[in-house]
Amino acid sequence: MIIPTYEDAVAAHERIRPYIHRTPVLTSTYMNAITGAQLFFKCENFQKAGAFKARGASNAVFGLDDEKAKLGVATHSSGNHALSLSYAAGRRGIPCHVVMPRTAPQAKKDAVAGYGGKITECEPSTSSREAVFAEVQAATGADFVHPYNDPRVIAGQATCSRELVEDIGDLDAVVAPIGGGGMISGSCLTLSNIAPSTKIYAAEPKNADDAYRSFKAGHIIADDAPQTVADGLKVPLKDLTWHFVSNHVSDIFTATEQEIIDAMYLTWQRMKIVVEPSCAVPLAVILKNREVFEGKRVGVIITGGNVDLNKLPWMTG
Amino acid sequence: MIIPTYEDAVAAHERIRPYIHRTPVLTSTYMNAITGAQLFFKCENFQKAGAFKARGASNAVFGLDDEKAKLGVATHSSGNHALSLSYAAGRRGIPCHVVMPRTAPQAKKDAVAGYGGKITECEPSTSSREAVFAEVQAATGADFVHPYNDPRVIAGQATCSRELVEDIGDLDAVVAPIGGGGMISGSCLTLSNIAPSTKIYAAEPKNADDAYRSFKAGHIIADDAPQTVADGLKVPLKDLTWHFVSNHVSDIFTATEQEIIDAMYLTWQRMKIVVEPSCAVPLAVILKNREVFEGKRVGVIITGGNVDLNKLPWMTG
Repeated sequence: MIIPTYEDAVAAHERIRPYIHRTPVLTSTYMNAITGAQLFFKCENFQKAGAFKARGASNAVFGLDDEKAKLGVATHSSGNHALSLSYAAGRRGIPCHVVMPRTAPQAKKDAVAGYGGKITECEPSTSSREAVFAEVQAATGADFVHPYNDPRVIAGQATCSRELVEDIGDLDAVVAPIGGGGMISGSCLTLSNIAPSTKIYAAEPKNADDAYRSFKAGHIIADDAPQTVADGLKVPLKDLTWHFVSNHVSDIFTATEQEIIDAMYLTWQRMKIVVEPSCAVPLAVILKNREVFEGKRVGVIITGGNVDLNKLPWMTG
Repeated sequence: MIIPTYEDAVAAHERIRPYIHRTPVLTSTYMNAITGAQLFFKCENFQKAGAFKARGASNAVFGLDDEKAKLGVATHSSGNHALSLSYAAGRRGIPCHVVMPRTAPQAKKDAVAGYGGKITECEPSTSSREAVFAEVQAATGADFVHPYNDPRVIAGQATCSRELVEDIGDLDAVVAPIGGGGMISGSCLTLSNIAPSTKIYAAEPKNADDAYRSFKAGHIIADDAPQTVADGLKVPLKDLTWHFVSNHVSDIFTATEQEIIDAMYLTWQRMKIVVEPSCAVPLAVILKNREVFEGKRVGVIITGGNVDLNKLPWMTG
């Protein structure tokens, strides 16, 4: 296990700067009023390819030497990581191979293809995915970039909190959603180095609370196929992200499906931004745990904005 | 007819600065690629009360002397002007009286009341509205602030283009939606003074193209109750806004309902911002009149983000 250092994060920031947006930090009088806190929303929904994942993917892609890069990169994902890796590979002009279940929504396949990703379909099972992925890698020699359990990816995600601290200054706390733990690990990497007094909280759907239970148990617990509207947060922690979570996270809070949907609706309605359900989990837990955040300066990571506009969760209830 | 001067706009900017956001200007690689232009989106959907109208309303409210102010302000509107005037009056701590048809959606009444506006209901007819409004004004002595045909309001809206030019520099063109013409008049006021080579284009729904027909005919033509998804753009030009439109607008382009809805969907999907249908009319006409804008630096006014999230136009088709 190679644990990335803060120097890796600084190097990542230099490396990816031409390929990512320095996203804005928004504030909202209304959100401050209803939470009693001073909230700073770091808007990675405005990031390239629509999510913070462009940071880690760009760091992995542009960190390859020319010889390795020629063979391209590969991953298995049907979400933002696949989009972001396709985007970054496209910017470098190298192939990106994405293994996706044939049952994935056509819109997601189209989006990956739109960024130039080459899709190979597998059956919707772990065994098929692993077998097909191994074939693709053997045939191409492409470099595997895991969505989160990869030191290059975590160092890339770490640049997000770095910008937040540079732009906003001291924060009492940062809250980010947790799924596999890539964003939280990056936040831990940066904040433990440059803002060690800032507390780091993870926000998780109650319906996919494996990180919460892992945190309380002191070891990784992985759920089998949890169901939540926050579809970016279904994946389990892995050894590298567990390292950061277990060492640097102050606490993990959970929110119900309805609390997540309500917070998402409120964010669209009052802040006029399109955010994924996953991004609403931090606001939901801040509203729910008022006593923890009241009177504090709190950074909130808005992780992405890739959502099916034809199927909004408050309309299907 | 009192025509506001650029000095009025500068004074307005000083006056309203503490009460409005200096809204960000967003760019999008994707939007540039599909239009062939370099687009700068001035995001008034992030403005106080969710629309540019907070500028004009704040200028009217904070320009009153203390004695007049005590009696409050009044308007008839069920849209963004009512919200904005209520917001501005609330900031000054004076009453705001809003006459609204009793048939207006409850959500709009709640929103106005949420900003502290005092609603008096009328029947959904012009005669009832005028009668009830006269009663309210007689009873309260409140100062009437028209949604757009008011020099104070136009001077306030003029601050929007001023910020755009300050932040982005020279522009070949600015495109804004046109309904009653308040935003376009403000843009004309500023640009004709500080950027006289910048062309000003108005964008209008084909279903409510009274400004287009007025422009071609050379005199005001008012439609009776036009129907369009861009519900902020149904109102007709008045003498003051006609003055600016007829003197300073280069051309008016129209877009069909479907073109407006498509442009709105694209804005949400690719820019991750919540915008009203009215805001999508400029993008729709830029896409449709590529030859006019290709290769140019174009400012686009995103006028507001107050939309019913439970009823999105691409879902009702």
